[in-house]
Amino acid sequence: MSKRAHNFCAGPAALPTAVLERAQAEMLDWQGKGLSVMEMSHRSDEYVAIAEKAEQDLRDLLSIPSDYKVLFLQGGASQQFAEIPLNLLPEDGVADYIETGIWSKKAIEEAQRYGNINVAASAKGYDYFAIPGQNEWQLSKDAAYVHYASNETIGGLQFDWIPEVGDTPLVVDMSSDILSREIDVSKFGLIYAGAQKNIGPSGLVVAIIREDLLGRARSVCPTMLNYKVAADNGSMYNTPATYSWYLSGLVFEWLKEQGGVAAMEKRNKAKKDLLYKAIDASDFYTNPIQPSARSWMNVPFRLADEKLDKAFLVGAEARGLLNLKGHRSVGGMRASIYNATGLDAVEALVAYMAEFEKEHG
Amino acid sequence: MSKRAHNFCAGPAALPTAVLERAQAEMLDWQGKGLSVMEMSHRSDEYVAIAEKAEQDLRDLLSIPSDYKVLFLQGGASQQFAEIPLNLLPEDGVADYIETGIWSKKAIEEAQRYGNINVAASAKGYDYFAIPGQNEWQLSKDAAYVHYASNETIGGLQFDWIPEVGDTPLVVDMSSDILSREIDVSKFGLIYAGAQKNIGPSGLVVAIIREDLLGRARSVCPTMLNYKVAADNGSMYNTPATYSWYLSGLVFEWLKEQGGVAAMEKRNKAKKDLLYKAIDASDFYTNPIQPSARSWMNVPFRLADEKLDKAFLVGAEARGLLNLKGHRSVGGMRASIYNATGLDAVEALVAYMAEFEKEHG
Repeated sequence: MSKRAHNFCAGPAALPTAVLERAQAEMLDWQGKGLSVMEMSHRSDEYVAIAEKAEQDLRDLLSIPSDYKVLFLQGGASQQFAEIPLNLLPEDGVADYIETGIWSKKAIEEAQRYGNINVAASAKGYDYFAIPGQNEWQLSKDAAYVHYASNETIGGLQFDWIPEVGDTPLVVDMSSDILSREIDVSKFGLIYAGAQKNIGPSGLVVAIIREDLLGRARSVCPTMLNYKVAADNGSMYNTPATYSWYLSGLVFEWLKEQGGVAAMEKRNKAKKDLLYKAIDASDFYTNPIQPSARSWMNVPFRLADEKLDKAFLVGAEARGLLNLKGHRSVGGMRASIYNATGLDAVEALVAYMAEFEKEHG
Repeated sequence: MSKRAHNFCAGPAALPTAVLERAQAEMLDWQGKGLSVMEMSHRSDEYVAIAEKAEQDLRDLLSIPSDYKVLFLQGGASQQFAEIPLNLLPEDGVADYIETGIWSKKAIEEAQRYGNINVAASAKGYDYFAIPGQNEWQLSKDAAYVHYASNETIGGLQFDWIPEVGDTPLVVDMSSDILSREIDVSKFGLIYAGAQKNIGPSGLVVAIIREDLLGRARSVCPTMLNYKVAADNGSMYNTPATYSWYLSGLVFEWLKEQGGVAAMEKRNKAKKDLLYKAIDASDFYTNPIQPSARSWMNVPFRLADEKLDKAFLVGAEARGLLNLKGHRSVGGMRASIYNATGLDAVEALVAYMAEFEKEHG
């Protein structure tokens, strides 16, 4: 039997062992058909059933209303940064963006190439340690949409509330916290998420879009980036990323078996409580984020002396605690604790942190 | 042991059993690291080594000159249909396209959205049963590039020659015949290929581009669709389709073990010779394509009476000969015999065809 490490990678991230075992078992011969899922025509009855079940399971998990389309796209969230203005921002319109860190900033920079972008609020004034309350936001009067990132993977900053923007469509990059806790999809015009954190392997993006927002694309929008074309063709205008879609479906099945998003939320709360408690209880480890804005998914922390970083990482790896190095733009450590990284992994990390502090603190 | 069928799917297509076995073995624990390749950061040393080896093996297989970049992109060939004019066609320029079937037609339709497209030649005059010789082409004087599809997957029409277009960059959609026989990469400005036929799983596109063609993108080109951005970032401007890239690398390794592209060419010639010979020797089966333009990869054929189509397919499936149904726009049968579909599969097909003819002919 293979020995599985505790993987704290920010993405592509850990997947449930049970999902990988099933994919492994089905790799050469899916359900006695004599071929792998990745060798199936996307138009075959077998594959269409796999794809439709994945969509239905995701709809069940998030209680997605029937007037929303679920799209399985490619190109990552970064491609969405262009796709969103190309589909939703009229050439003479304005869109509001909230800047809370590196990813929302990238979304802003790309959108600025396509029109008038109003940065309605920025966490810069808080050194990116807190999220500006909505009373501080300078929203436009007639914005085509309001965009924000619900969780900043690098900074470790997460909204624990949903903005109220009236009739303006709310667009959210949920790449790193989709399916981690319950949300009300009906509050949003568009939810998008790169798969490689809480959904499946990289190379897939899920978009959940309210139907009335389809059909607004600009003439320069590539056909493959047009949400309406994707929706009208069931995400099969051309060959989709079939194997990634299948694996995502296995993850959705696994989530349902675990008790769905409500159960994951409970588990994720226990995980992040344990880790932040360990950090706060110590003078050796620190996390600078305002408690209400702390991410449940990505927990950056620093050691009292950065000269110890290397030793910390070496010791962690020796214990099978992988990918704890912080993002190069931030330094320090980062533990990403998505759905597939269990409480046992966080317990092992916290035990190691205490041990390391005892030795080096 | 699983029983593997003979898979004649046009795409996503059969992969080598040895590749799937290796992926299966490494699924939960890659080389004792305790995690799957799809759970690795794309910036980790391990993954970067996997990605670089895949690129180097592809360079070796196709003898790609050093002044070409190899890009691992997303979105399929259909996204390239927009990406090519967005990167290579100035707004006031003209591009020449050769129309030989459904896929080159789709490329033309998308390119027409971005500028002046001259259809320099069309196989329509030959009912798409032959490719117009270059003496019939009406090339523009100052075309930004000349585009063609080397193999039409649906029509079963393939170039057995490379156009001579002087200094004009030659752009080719090689989705369904890349790596199937030897080519001189230096004749091309850009070669692109969706992975799901001869490379790996769907959701990955390989682009091989001459360096002097980088840096010409229009201002409206999404950053993710800009070849120069991809090239400058080693195809990791954002998270690439890491698992598909890894699997493609396993296919490249397998190809090298088989003797490389020259060996595949010999094998593919034997396969297509056997199949076309069986068709031509019979009055029951027909293929309408002019012999010199017949595809080595996709062999469409008809039965004498289309009322027998269903019985033919049912009998084939019972013998483990899968996905022989022709494309809905053409009807009849189609056997796609890419690299991973061996001579044994073609032998089994030909034997079945003879048997069926005897019974129903």
